[in-house]
Amino acid sequence: MTLQEALSRIHPLDSALMRRARARLDSLTKPRGSLGRLEAVAAQVVAIHGGPRALERKVIFTLAADHGVTGEGVSAYPKVVTREMVENFCRGGAAINVLARQVGAKVVIVDIGVDGDLPALPGLVSRKVTHGTRNFADGPAMTREQAEQAIAIGIGLVDEESHDGLDLVGTGEMGIGNTTAASALTVVLTGHPAPTVTGRGTGIDDTTWKRKVAVIEQALAVNHPDARDPLDVLAKVGGFEIAGLVGVIVGAATHRITILVDGFISGAAALIAVALNPAVKDFLLASHCSAEPGHRAILSHLGLAPLLDLELRLGEGTGAALAMPLVEAALAVYREMATFKEAGVSEKTP
Amino acid sequence: MTLQEALSRIHPLDSALMRRARARLDSLTKPRGSLGRLEAVAAQVVAIHGGPRALERKVIFTLAADHGVTGEGVSAYPKVVTREMVENFCRGGAAINVLARQVGAKVVIVDIGVDGDLPALPGLVSRKVTHGTRNFADGPAMTREQAEQAIAIGIGLVDEESHDGLDLVGTGEMGIGNTTAASALTVVLTGHPAPTVTGRGTGIDDTTWKRKVAVIEQALAVNHPDARDPLDVLAKVGGFEIAGLVGVIVGAATHRITILVDGFISGAAALIAVALNPAVKDFLLASHCSAEPGHRAILSHLGLAPLLDLELRLGEGTGAALAMPLVEAALAVYREMATFKEAGVSEKTP
Repeated sequence: MTLQEALSRIHPLDSALMRRARARLDSLTKPRGSLGRLEAVAAQVVAIHGGPRALERKVIFTLAADHGVTGEGVSAYPKVVTREMVENFCRGGAAINVLARQVGAKVVIVDIGVDGDLPALPGLVSRKVTHGTRNFADGPAMTREQAEQAIAIGIGLVDEESHDGLDLVGTGEMGIGNTTAASALTVVLTGHPAPTVTGRGTGIDDTTWKRKVAVIEQALAVNHPDARDPLDVLAKVGGFEIAGLVGVIVGAATHRITILVDGFISGAAALIAVALNPAVKDFLLASHCSAEPGHRAILSHLGLAPLLDLELRLGEGTGAALAMPLVEAALAVYREMATFKEAGVSEKTP
Repeated sequence: MTLQEALSRIHPLDSALMRRARARLDSLTKPRGSLGRLEAVAAQVVAIHGGPRALERKVIFTLAADHGVTGEGVSAYPKVVTREMVENFCRGGAAINVLARQVGAKVVIVDIGVDGDLPALPGLVSRKVTHGTRNFADGPAMTREQAEQAIAIGIGLVDEESHDGLDLVGTGEMGIGNTTAASALTVVLTGHPAPTVTGRGTGIDDTTWKRKVAVIEQALAVNHPDARDPLDVLAKVGGFEIAGLVGVIVGAATHRITILVDGFISGAAALIAVALNPAVKDFLLASHCSAEPGHRAILSHLGLAPLLDLELRLGEGTGAALAMPLVEAALAVYREMATFKEAGVSEKTP
């Protein structure tokens, strides 16, 4: 499926389904709306899936890639950590492994552009476009064709997993340097200035932060990304894992599956996906609000309210994993609670 | 165990244990602090329990009682709903039943002061002090002896459940009119004025809200609760379920068990418990921040940051149930993640 075919299959949610879902929620034995955001989640997911089916098969797609911009000294960790963490993912020792096990989700670990050759690791899906992006401080991170290839890979990943049934998709990533790319994308697509949306990533000091901001400003000056052309922006200052996640999001929306968007990097992918087709937004839940300042700008731009706000800044899909029980709880309420009528409970005094 | 005996057994957490827990968290394969609040939860719970044991037995105590102040017309639902909802709890059809099942928690449903006689219902624990409080707009809600009796009941409930092992306690309640009591307690113990901490409860209109505020102000003028004497405040403008939850909190702290405090009403019980012994605070996690404005005042007064902020305003223990997976996730991270050394991942660039 090409990107254009996929985009043409995504349509906004049926408002009649949404109204029926809300009416059911209002009939349950609780004051109307007293489960707050959980009720909104239930109505949205019921409308996406066409009913309150249990979320039996949950998959988090954790895409890894490297970033040429690390050559500018913008990160607290050496680039080799991307590869080392992919190995850690495949051995099950990283935070995403632990948190996905807790919620019974599968983690699909994908090399979509890690620098250097990874050994054949158990569970590793090899879809390498190339050995990381070029340094976007000097020119485009990738070609437009590479961006489209990475998106198609993401769409394909969801297609493959959907063969066994797929009820909930989480996004995740790993890539030393990728908060620099996500910040650059956020500047272009939200219009906020670089210092406002650029954070400390894995924990950089003041000097490195100033350099990071300067590198982003230079990248935008050198590459002139066109804000009206999301693929142009993605290719010029994005990353392969980000492009892959655009594909995961678009692919899940074509299958009408709810998407739990993780943190800042995943949020940047969501920005691109929604720019490609605004109807994508109906399929998104924001799992959390990251400690990275650019993430709040993204959520505000997309009009998404995060489910969690725990000052996470790890990525990998950890926020998506942590939010999964909330989505399951919302659906359980919808399916299992008694109505006022069934329980013989008195309704509100008129 | 009397209240005074219980209070004398509660001591602050061991700071050496806390430091060791933080050192372990810093050794794991993630940037330091990148799991944000989850790391603080892990360190606290490890320090409370003396180690990162799994939370195998989780119990939510949902205490129900009636409030004489409903005679003033302060609630959107008739008083009989307290009893009807207890029956709903015992049949498993309420939100707390659904959400507790989702997380594998037991719900202990307790009649500690419901008006009228409840039939013998499966799973109902009968510990009725009396048939609801007196209308505190005219005089004290209960006697000091009744308040002490209700607290002792709460302590006893935790004692009983701890015989089978108890790893996590959640608080919950049901009682038409109890946001009026919780608001009154909050005014006295936080010093905020009644209009600031009084909310819409189950969904009252403007006229009823103004009456509710006036009733609270009248109750405080009539009863003169002494802010330096938490039992006096509790007896004069509290409720039996609130007093019982003070006992649940105090009891769990004596057993060194982590307590997930639910919403506004449970928060008012936590205010009293911490006023009785400030060391209680070390055992508390705030599960969420309620849509009731008084709850934010309580959390701020106690210095607790909520794990969730989902505009919930249902009570029953629903917020505590929803937050349980986050506590379990925090402990799983602590136990199961690989360290930098184990995983051979490079550390931060010096």
